[in-house]
Amino acid sequence: MSAAEQPLIKRMAVIGVGLIGGSLARVLREKGAVGEVVGIGRGEANLRRGVELGVLDRYSLDAKEGVQGADLVFIATPVCSIPGVVAEIAPFLAPGAIVTDGGSVKEYVVEACEQLMPEGTFFVGGHPIAGTEHSGVEASFATLYQGKRCIVTPTPRTDPAALAKVVEVWKLAGSTVPLMDPVQHDRVVGAISHLPHMVAYSLVNAVDGYDRFGGELLSFTAGGFRDFTRIASSDPVMWRDIALTNRDAILETMDFFAGYLAKLRSMVEAGDAAALESFFLNSKQKRDAIL
Amino acid sequence: MSAAEQPLIKRMAVIGVGLIGGSLARVLREKGAVGEVVGIGRGEANLRRGVELGVLDRYSLDAKEGVQGADLVFIATPVCSIPGVVAEIAPFLAPGAIVTDGGSVKEYVVEACEQLMPEGTFFVGGHPIAGTEHSGVEASFATLYQGKRCIVTPTPRTDPAALAKVVEVWKLAGSTVPLMDPVQHDRVVGAISHLPHMVAYSLVNAVDGYDRFGGELLSFTAGGFRDFTRIASSDPVMWRDIALTNRDAILETMDFFAGYLAKLRSMVEAGDAAALESFFLNSKQKRDAIL
Repeated sequence: MSAAEQPLIKRMAVIGVGLIGGSLARVLREKGAVGEVVGIGRGEANLRRGVELGVLDRYSLDAKEGVQGADLVFIATPVCSIPGVVAEIAPFLAPGAIVTDGGSVKEYVVEACEQLMPEGTFFVGGHPIAGTEHSGVEASFATLYQGKRCIVTPTPRTDPAALAKVVEVWKLAGSTVPLMDPVQHDRVVGAISHLPHMVAYSLVNAVDGYDRFGGELLSFTAGGFRDFTRIASSDPVMWRDIALTNRDAILETMDFFAGYLAKLRSMVEAGDAAALESFFLNSKQKRDAIL
Repeated sequence: MSAAEQPLIKRMAVIGVGLIGGSLARVLREKGAVGEVVGIGRGEANLRRGVELGVLDRYSLDAKEGVQGADLVFIATPVCSIPGVVAEIAPFLAPGAIVTDGGSVKEYVVEACEQLMPEGTFFVGGHPIAGTEHSGVEASFATLYQGKRCIVTPTPRTDPAALAKVVEVWKLAGSTVPLMDPVQHDRVVGAISHLPHMVAYSLVNAVDGYDRFGGELLSFTAGGFRDFTRIASSDPVMWRDIALTNRDAILETMDFFAGYLAKLRSMVEAGDAAALESFFLNSKQKRDAIL
């Protein structure tokens, strides 16, 4: 970008400067797409670290103050807190400001937040499907979103120009940006992300609780188990909020999964060699196709 | 090793030259611990490739012929076939020969094979807890067993000198070698390996079968899902045999897991924030402790 060009975003406020918020700030800075980044949060040490790392230009512990003059506000806090954050900042938003988020559940967030926005400011829901099991600004990096998908969830009430700008931001971050209805988003992500997390958390708890051998079971695990359960190390508060806000889709997909597990159990019980091999083969073929 | 020293094993026959068999041959050759490696199998192209890759010195399509003069026979075929292989080769084993295996289920294998061994030859069960989702001799590599565990499963009938030699082989391959009763082995491995595979296979089938969105669900999956389901790409025939031969332990651990899944389901249904957070936190803490 030449010095004469205006950046895409003059001032971005990031509320919740962790892996998700920090990584978006990093990549937009790297692309010269943002003039100033203001970090907002409650943990001052983390925010100070964000400035030291060059992720933020400055920070504020007060969201009302921090969002002033921002043309883009990115909320990257746990899902349940997002509507409360929007309610708090709404009266202090600059005219034309766009608020977007990175929450993993969209119907709950979008429905609540759209209603809270003052005239002439705009909410657009988003969900970058990217992450690691690490958290905090230290864990953030500019290529987190490279080659990933960020689902953006407009509704009939979404402002087209605001939508276009949020899509552009995520494309700049390196993601492809499918658009999806918030309800459809919650079912898709319920199946491909929330369900696997529920399964992984249950599995680690079960293996840990299986006490036939004095609790040393986990010490025998090999690479397969560790990879398989990596997502069971994800942030408990974040996942508590997802389970609370995408309840129906999670229950539906858990029941769907439990049906398959029961089907496999009956094949094992019956010693049905042909059915077992075909169940495993279908899984292998479907899994290999997404590599 | 100086030229004057005898290698630990003069001639090793490997029955089933894939990832497991090929990798053991590679590392023992690298350490100078084996004089000659004879590959045995049904797929001649694979065996020829094993010679080209330097994994094998020569090969035979006939197990009876291939094991002649071998002081160590390593059987790395699917679990169900192991007793049949031992029955076939038993009359042709050299005096003092040790037969060991790499099967993932031990009670079934050890009980059957011990009874088949002629006087003056010895069976010792083993299970290297290592692997990737790839198979075939092309996928084998000398460091597969480095830093892993190989559980060896002696019984009251096991010859102590044969046991010591099998332990030494796996230590040379870079593994630690816990000894375990075959029944205990099957419960431990049922929980930490067989159960996760049953869960992963069920999950991929469930997500694939969840048809609300026209079957394109899997295309939305991110790294977390891919890592989580890597083990669902494992060899269907190998896992069919494991499910058939470790039936009781697998049913027990599946039921145990299903209990945890049901517990989590009721927390989600009740919207119990505190219980959800503590369920996820326990999993995270236990998982992080095995990193």
